[in-house]
Amino acid sequence: MKKLINAPDAVVAEALAGLAAAHPDLLRVHFNPDYIVRADAPVRGKVALISGGGSGHEPLHGGFVGRGMLDAACPGAIFTSPVPDQMLAAARAVHGGRGVLQVVKNYTGDVMNFEMAAELAAAEGITVASVVTNDDVAVRDSLYTAGRRGVGVTVLLEKIVGAAAEAGADLATCQRIADQVNAQGRSMGMALTSCTVPHVGRPTFDLPADEMEIGIGIHGEPGRTRLPLAPAAAVAELLARPIIDDLPLRRGDHVLAFVNGMGGTPLIELYLMFKELTGILAGQGITISRSLVGSYITSLEMAGCSFTLLKLDDELTRLWDAPVLTPALRWGM
Amino acid sequence: MKKLINAPDAVVAEALAGLAAAHPDLLRVHFNPDYIVRADAPVRGKVALISGGGSGHEPLHGGFVGRGMLDAACPGAIFTSPVPDQMLAAARAVHGGRGVLQVVKNYTGDVMNFEMAAELAAAEGITVASVVTNDDVAVRDSLYTAGRRGVGVTVLLEKIVGAAAEAGADLATCQRIADQVNAQGRSMGMALTSCTVPHVGRPTFDLPADEMEIGIGIHGEPGRTRLPLAPAAAVAELLARPIIDDLPLRRGDHVLAFVNGMGGTPLIELYLMFKELTGILAGQGITISRSLVGSYITSLEMAGCSFTLLKLDDELTRLWDAPVLTPALRWGM
Repeated sequence: MKKLINAPDAVVAEALAGLAAAHPDLLRVHFNPDYIVRADAPVRGKVALISGGGSGHEPLHGGFVGRGMLDAACPGAIFTSPVPDQMLAAARAVHGGRGVLQVVKNYTGDVMNFEMAAELAAAEGITVASVVTNDDVAVRDSLYTAGRRGVGVTVLLEKIVGAAAEAGADLATCQRIADQVNAQGRSMGMALTSCTVPHVGRPTFDLPADEMEIGIGIHGEPGRTRLPLAPAAAVAELLARPIIDDLPLRRGDHVLAFVNGMGGTPLIELYLMFKELTGILAGQGITISRSLVGSYITSLEMAGCSFTLLKLDDELTRLWDAPVLTPALRWGM
Repeated sequence: MKKLINAPDAVVAEALAGLAAAHPDLLRVHFNPDYIVRADAPVRGKVALISGGGSGHEPLHGGFVGRGMLDAACPGAIFTSPVPDQMLAAARAVHGGRGVLQVVKNYTGDVMNFEMAAELAAAEGITVASVVTNDDVAVRDSLYTAGRRGVGVTVLLEKIVGAAAEAGADLATCQRIADQVNAQGRSMGMALTSCTVPHVGRPTFDLPADEMEIGIGIHGEPGRTRLPLAPAAAVAELLARPIIDDLPLRRGDHVLAFVNGMGGTPLIELYLMFKELTGILAGQGITISRSLVGSYITSLEMAGCSFTLLKLDDELTRLWDAPVLTPALRWGM
């Protein structure tokens, strides 16, 4: 196992300490229970957005804490759900009197623990709503999921709903926009290599040198199929078609196109994949109005990528464009 | 070779097409000769900054084209210097009447070709100055270099001098600041794995599963030494001490601390390394005033990282903080 770490058990806490040290202007990190809050929390009169999940997907979610996006993020151990105490402590730290929206990726442990946290917060008088993202078209049920997995749409949702909350939207409006983003977005991913969970010390799965896994999950859980390695153009078709068919997207639609790296894939390949995606969408009469290219929801050092397409309207476009200031996404301020 | 590409010879052009498609608001790409220019080029009355070098180091340099940073970038083939025709065409496209500053990393081919381009541009009446970055403390001479190699400081220099040019500084001032940044910055890198150049198809070097290379170059060229794998804290010492000693940094100094990923290392490990670096610097009485953590000057999918420390003063800090709007670095606008 070749990693820049000290000890498997210390990875999350030490990386959080680094995050805090690198961005004192944007966020603060609380340990035991672990959570990250924006530097100016709590913001009075604003709906608070809280997300979280297993670590190993950085910059998700801690890298999205800051003005115009998340108020708090709760990191679990690597690929392990955070516990309700984290979300409860985060809710206490960030709620500003207008309620909390939990952004939860659809994994059984995450959903269960966020539900428990919501009940505990409600018992303390904090109003909590939730959205569960389930945008992965690859598989219906999976190793860790009843229903579809939540993946790339989560990033876009946190940005868009974060902008709405920052602009003063109430909890019901934030919930409506969150549900809309989840309904209008779909993703599909693939892997060229496995990742290695530090405390396991060996690759999560074996993938021969001449094969790739299509429909991979962000924890290395199985996807749809294994195929021989193929050119980027063919890989792009395998990822884009199921998304286009599932939404479905139609001629004349405008989308945000998000090409995401899994952690070990360099940017030059992601831009190459984006070029392939633009060709496919142009051929369908679908317009890319906005784009995001980079490694934003990762699986440790896994090599591979995912596509996410979000159908845009004027409201979502305006919220995407709104200023944001976090470690991983920042523009307009 | 597991890569998201179509054909080795097409990688650079296809990735450039993707860059152009993803960022039409920020930049334009010209093919044959290949160069990238900011969308509003030429900017009249502004010193133009041009950089370039072999591809495979993305986002360097194309991802730094835009307001407040580079006016143009010239990408060569993977790990291969661009040719003078590219720099000359870029100079014609972006010069705004106040001269051109070339930002060149110290590799023999790059230096020679940028010098030739400068002569050709001068013959057309374009005033050209140059800075050659040589911040890598690892080795004095190397496979591709007489003297030290130019690495991470190049990123910081392009941002800082780009801000000066954007604010209206003349060519002599841009040159002075560029020379100062290069003089006050040092870097050192390491690798856990090799990268594979697409048209070669096999790893650039063999690195056993239990070893790491300290002082690695950004093309996989040899560093100082191979050592058994070590904890992150020990790796951080091996990278930071030579920088601190070489500059030298002294108690009371303020620095910009840049922890850079080599392309295949995930963000969680980079933040962990940043935490280690903060501890070392704090122990020396050196203050981290600004920071940058991420993969900004890469070696394809190589796993590893580099540290760059830049001694700051008020002027450099102000220029670092100034607004920038490029694909890879953006804040304040």
